[in-house]
Amino acid sequence: MSTDSQTASPISPLAPKEMPILHSVSGLKVGTTETGMKYKNRDDLLFVEFDEGTQVAGVFTQSKTPGAPVDWTINALKASKGQARALIVNAGNANAFTGKAGLQTTQDIATSLSRKINCSRTEILQASTGVIGEPLDPQPLVTGVEDLMAKEEQGFEAAAKAILTTDTFPKAASAHLSIHGCQTTITGIAKGSGMIAPDMATMLGFIFTDARIAPHVLHQLLQDYTDKSFNAITVDSDTSTSDMVLLFATGASADYPMIADCDDPALDEFKGGLQSIMIDLAHQIVRDGEGATKFVEIEVTGAEDNRAAKTLALAMANSPLVKTAIAGEDPNWGRLIMAAGKSGERVDRDKMKLWIGDQMVANEGARVAGYSEEQATTHMKGEVIRLKLDGGTTGTGTATVWTCDLTHGYITINADYRS
Amino acid sequence: MSTDSQTASPISPLAPKEMPILHSVSGLKVGTTETGMKYKNRDDLLFVEFDEGTQVAGVFTQSKTPGAPVDWTINALKASKGQARALIVNAGNANAFTGKAGLQTTQDIATSLSRKINCSRTEILQASTGVIGEPLDPQPLVTGVEDLMAKEEQGFEAAAKAILTTDTFPKAASAHLSIHGCQTTITGIAKGSGMIAPDMATMLGFIFTDARIAPHVLHQLLQDYTDKSFNAITVDSDTSTSDMVLLFATGASADYPMIADCDDPALDEFKGGLQSIMIDLAHQIVRDGEGATKFVEIEVTGAEDNRAAKTLALAMANSPLVKTAIAGEDPNWGRLIMAAGKSGERVDRDKMKLWIGDQMVANEGARVAGYSEEQATTHMKGEVIRLKLDGGTTGTGTATVWTCDLTHGYITINADYRS
Repeated sequence: MSTDSQTASPISPLAPKEMPILHSVSGLKVGTTETGMKYKNRDDLLFVEFDEGTQVAGVFTQSKTPGAPVDWTINALKASKGQARALIVNAGNANAFTGKAGLQTTQDIATSLSRKINCSRTEILQASTGVIGEPLDPQPLVTGVEDLMAKEEQGFEAAAKAILTTDTFPKAASAHLSIHGCQTTITGIAKGSGMIAPDMATMLGFIFTDARIAPHVLHQLLQDYTDKSFNAITVDSDTSTSDMVLLFATGASADYPMIADCDDPALDEFKGGLQSIMIDLAHQIVRDGEGATKFVEIEVTGAEDNRAAKTLALAMANSPLVKTAIAGEDPNWGRLIMAAGKSGERVDRDKMKLWIGDQMVANEGARVAGYSEEQATTHMKGEVIRLKLDGGTTGTGTATVWTCDLTHGYITINADYRS
Repeated sequence: MSTDSQTASPISPLAPKEMPILHSVSGLKVGTTETGMKYKNRDDLLFVEFDEGTQVAGVFTQSKTPGAPVDWTINALKASKGQARALIVNAGNANAFTGKAGLQTTQDIATSLSRKINCSRTEILQASTGVIGEPLDPQPLVTGVEDLMAKEEQGFEAAAKAILTTDTFPKAASAHLSIHGCQTTITGIAKGSGMIAPDMATMLGFIFTDARIAPHVLHQLLQDYTDKSFNAITVDSDTSTSDMVLLFATGASADYPMIADCDDPALDEFKGGLQSIMIDLAHQIVRDGEGATKFVEIEVTGAEDNRAAKTLALAMANSPLVKTAIAGEDPNWGRLIMAAGKSGERVDRDKMKLWIGDQMVANEGARVAGYSEEQATTHMKGEVIRLKLDGGTTGTGTATVWTCDLTHGYITINADYRS
């Protein structure tokens, strides 16, 4: 990793052609600034201030060595029962494995900001991303927020840029939809360039809406759709100490009663919009996978249940031999069989089916008669690779995951540069 | 992968300087020959014929998509209750994911060879390594064995070479020791250049002794020491469809009564010798890891139990970010903390300790005061890297695993060549 990601790596060839239109969300104010702590000539601090009554839910890394801001935000959400007044995010230092000093930093930030906003300390949510093991001084962050409060509001594009580390492009998505006939907006930003990437990048996602939704409903939606979006992607199988996705609902769009039931039909359109935005953001992270040249979709059917299907799909998505074959544009289907076999999940070897693109390449425990290597190779030469496995069990489990290939670029980014 | 591994890759820089002396083992006859099926100008068929009364035990891949010879040998061992008269191994075609035709091939080989040797079909043990998904014709193998039976006996060095695929050097180890005052020999050979490597290489180990030991004792010893040797190494976290380790005891060294108790003190020296040979062979496989430039030992203490310790050690050993940091000679200890955190095993983040070489770099949830990056970097520049983690729990679980770094060489071998 270089200290300035913006110059170290060219923009991923899989990046979207342009930034989508990002709708503003009523009930919140976005600001970004430059602390000068690590990066030069770019903003590295995001501050979002929310109107009173904003509800929030979060999902967090499963790491047993989480960073201090993860601990802080998990505990704050519990204590406040899902109330939020501010989000502060810094890029360049993860405040992870920093011991008691790291914890003190999160407490100092919360104390300072809660006084400024006149709210409870537990309504200040925090996230940090960057180097592991470096002490984080709270003062530049607090000073940065003071400066911001005097400035004009900024947009979500600036927000998406301020949270980047080794990412090669900013990631955001936005939609308008309707609840009870009222126009509602969802806008989300994310960062990540590896499921974790190195010292300098981890997965963060922040999604904002002006709908009026209770925290337990937000939590249920966030959990359900995270499983099918952020938790269905992998770049290198490594899990960050700092991963966090937060979903904020300001309630400022209209004055219908707060939605407190996950199955409320008024939510139907919102659910579809939220799921699309989360999958879109997750795909953008894969498209910025370190060294990636191929976007890969792996679908599994015929597994014992959905959990087994996802384990099978991730075993294929994380296999270095599968990922290098894709990098080499080699329809090396034996490696897919190998990876499915090592997952530990039950498959029926003699009933399994495997597809590369639209072509079935294996069936009944062997290669399909008339298999066309040429057709498979043509598919592998594309930018989007689709692989599908049917496990051949009597179960109906299915899953879809997304990943990228493993290339010299990954080694160059992670081994050739010194931190 | 190229079709001729001997010319595709230079010998690993981690290879032993010379082949050790390989003692012959009484009660068996070794032969190798060239079938011409895949490789040119090298033997690719190993045949070992055993005297009557030879006992055998095996451990096998946990893959849910095992190759036909794995199925055959597991079933043969059960049916014969651990009796062996012959071992046949071919390199270049794994006879895996070949459906009913693959099963038929193993049956045809067993039928032909059992007639020639005049033994039961289930006393013919089989292993294959190489490409997945290609039909394997039994005829060249049977013809090869017929030719061999007319030839002079060959040594274990020829045997070690005949089973190679993408390996860059042959792997063998040998020792003399004593049981009941009688000199006994153990000689083992192995292949593998990746825990699995691609289409062309998987892990095989065959160990021969002339001791007189009952099959259930052989099985217990093999299982115990496999956990600390072949199952404690990883190159790329991928698991082969064909992995197999067999331990044969001809009983030809002397006529003491067959040892039928694992705790028999007469076995003490033998146990030490067997464990050393198995660890030696396992280390040689890591030293031939695809693209490897560093041999890495990872020790874990202070885990809840030995199983947890091994999971933690393997999480670090398999992390692409740890392996690329080692390739880059970067003492990037934050990645080790990350990898331990993602393993799912309990650690006490605020009591964990981490060492690079002999230097403690982290303690009590943070970097050690006075940490010398220079000293850590010097250690990382060596050929043998030692890493140690204490999980900080009250448990006494320990484990040691071995791996190699992840380099451009790995990508080149697995992505740049087309099969």
